Amino acid sequence: MSLPPPAGRQPTIKEVARRAEVSPMTVSRTLAGGSGVRPDLQERVLAAVRELGYHRNENARSLRPGQASGLIGVAITNLANPYYGTFCLGVEEVATQHGRRIILGNTGEDQARERQLVADFIGRQVEGLVVVPSGRDTEESDDDSPKGDQLSGEHLGRVPLVLASRQVPGIGADTVVLDDIGGARQGTERLLTAGHRRIGYLGNAVSVFTGQRRYRGFEQALAEHGLAADPALVQRDQQDVESARAATADLLDQPDSPTAIFSANNRNTIGALQEISRRLRTGTGPGDFPALVGFDSFELADLTPVPLTVIDHDARQLGAEAARLLFDRLPGGVQPEAPRTVELPVTLRVIRQ
Amino acid sequence: MSLPPPAGRQPTIKEVARRAEVSPMTVSRTLAGGSGVRPDLQERVLAAVRELGYHRNENARSLRPGQASGLIGVAITNLANPYYGTFCLGVEEVATQHGRRIILGNTGEDQARERQLVADFIGRQVEGLVVVPSGRDTEESDDDSPKGDQLSGEHLGRVPLVLASRQVPGIGADTVVLDDIGGARQGTERLLTAGHRRIGYLGNAVSVFTGQRRYRGFEQALAEHGLAADPALVQRDQQDVESARAATADLLDQPDSPTAIFSANNRNTIGALQEISRRLRTGTGPGDFPALVGFDSFELADLTPVPLTVIDHDARQLGAEAARLLFDRLPGGVQPEAPRTVELPVTLRVIRQ
Repeated sequence: MSLPPPAGRQPTIKEVARRAEVSPMTVSRTLAGGSGVRPDLQERVLAAVRELGYHRNENARSLRPGQASGLIGVAITNLANPYYGTFCLGVEEVATQHGRRIILGNTGEDQARERQLVADFIGRQVEGLVVVPSGRDTEESDDDSPKGDQLSGEHLGRVPLVLASRQVPGIGADTVVLDDIGGARQGTERLLTAGHRRIGYLGNAVSVFTGQRRYRGFEQALAEHGLAADPALVQRDQQDVESARAATADLLDQPDSPTAIFSANNRNTIGALQEISRRLRTGTGPGDFPALVGFDSFELADLTPVPLTVIDHDARQLGAEAARLLFDRLPGGVQPEAPRTVELPVTLRVIRQ
Repeated sequence: MSLPPPAGRQPTIKEVARRAEVSPMTVSRTLAGGSGVRPDLQERVLAAVRELGYHRNENARSLRPGQASGLIGVAITNLANPYYGTFCLGVEEVATQHGRRIILGNTGEDQARERQLVADFIGRQVEGLVVVPSGRDTEESDDDSPKGDQLSGEHLGRVPLVLASRQVPGIGADTVVLDDIGGARQGTERLLTAGHRRIGYLGNAVSVFTGQRRYRGFEQALAEHGLAADPALVQRDQQDVESARAATADLLDQPDSPTAIFSANNRNTIGALQEISRRLRTGTGPGDFPALVGFDSFELADLTPVPLTVIDHDARQLGAEAARLLFDRLPGGVQPEAPRTVELPVTLRVIRQ
């Protein structure tokens, strides 16, 4: 039996192997689950691991020698939205293929929390960042702002960044977005073609990139039919289901309530469906409920009590694509020169005519 | 201006301050977002940070001096289930209060992936682990199994572990679970009291702790009414919505189909609702659709076309409680001696009579 290594130093796999009187390969196999290793040898390895206090160090085993943390920082805006759980799954799957893990933080659409989270990730030596940026006040994004942006190169050092879902003015990072404008335009066009003229709008915050783009697509479709958005029918700034439900109630309570509603994300569509189904159950007006077209698919869309079309896309694919763009910039990647923007397509899916 | 620090060493905050000719406090404030710092001083600090390659190291700032990683490893079974996104949010909120971040991995109910993930987390020097354990074959959990379990103290060294949702036989870790048996019993009791006698069962995998407990609660309620489960009406082992939909179709297609269904988690309830609504839309039988009682609440439960009661609880609270148990065992915590099990209550919530 060999002596334990000097205090304060992590024992190596070779020292574990010597103490257990097996080969280093047997130690590795045992720690990887024990497949193909005789039970008595596994027992000896585990005993040596315990005695020496050995921990397999994944960092040391990562592709990049030296101080790489093997961590990818992921900052999202709302983990209570199932959309972002699925998004994280996509990032995590690609990260795992590259031997990395994700550290995850939730910003709640709050700039200060995003700033803190990104500084924290950088401090933890992440190898890269995938960020769904929170909404930004347009005034703040002036180039001569002294504070700059926590996503600027100055704050990030050499840590590669990929933005997902949303761009940030002045930040020239790789970005993967959806075809927000085209999707919103086609969705609204569908309502117009069906003869609707009073179309309500339920949107996420004006300060959010997708909120702006989807509203633009909505306006474009109206303009193509010689119409303009009616301010009385436009409710923006709903970031959760409860506020979307209340905004829907406002639309439904108007004397000349809309015959259709375009909704800019799944939080808003779900809030609208909740309010409509509540009124159907309780028999409260209006007599006819609006048809819906909504961005994002979601579970149980099938149960809609009103005509519904969703603008469908895959949050997992969005996460995976963001991770792929990031790994292009990590050691072993293709190292593209200029920032790239990938726009993923969306498709209209009729849930109920 | 001072010289850069020797290569291979991280510059300190004092060295940044010297180079920028400001106080260390000004450096800290600038890196924390710049509040209260004159723009020209901020510029000088950021220039010094760039020149020296300084990164604020959150690890070094954590409560525990030395080599603490500041990371909590979180392993869950299905990130595509919104339940677990909300669960992670609860863990993350408590971890953030303690200055830690979570690293997240998805096991997909796969033992080999769980083993790999836990080894990886340990290798990354996590300070603690929160694990929703994957299902275990009961044969594998024999005490004399040579492999042991990846969640045993032998594999984890001194890293504290909290199990969430599910216990693992032979693993004496702190555990937070739901009142699975009581919830399932009360839910089934509700159906029995309403006069139902042919009650179908849709469950998650038999090898999963919650799957066993919820089935036990179902059987207990039946036994209290002098009944036993009818094997023809019991469908277990559905881990996703699609398999739950197919299992529901099997139940509905039986000549004497059940008048009610108890469903053991939200994946199964959602699958059941999808199949029932599909048949209502297409006018396929049976003539009467079963009433549902299901474990877990979920978005859009309101839209149910059949009577529905959910066994309600808060995934965020479950995550937060798991994190609190963990921090009790980290430096500064109360350091309880014996493993603790916390059982969180559930409540029946009638969605539609």
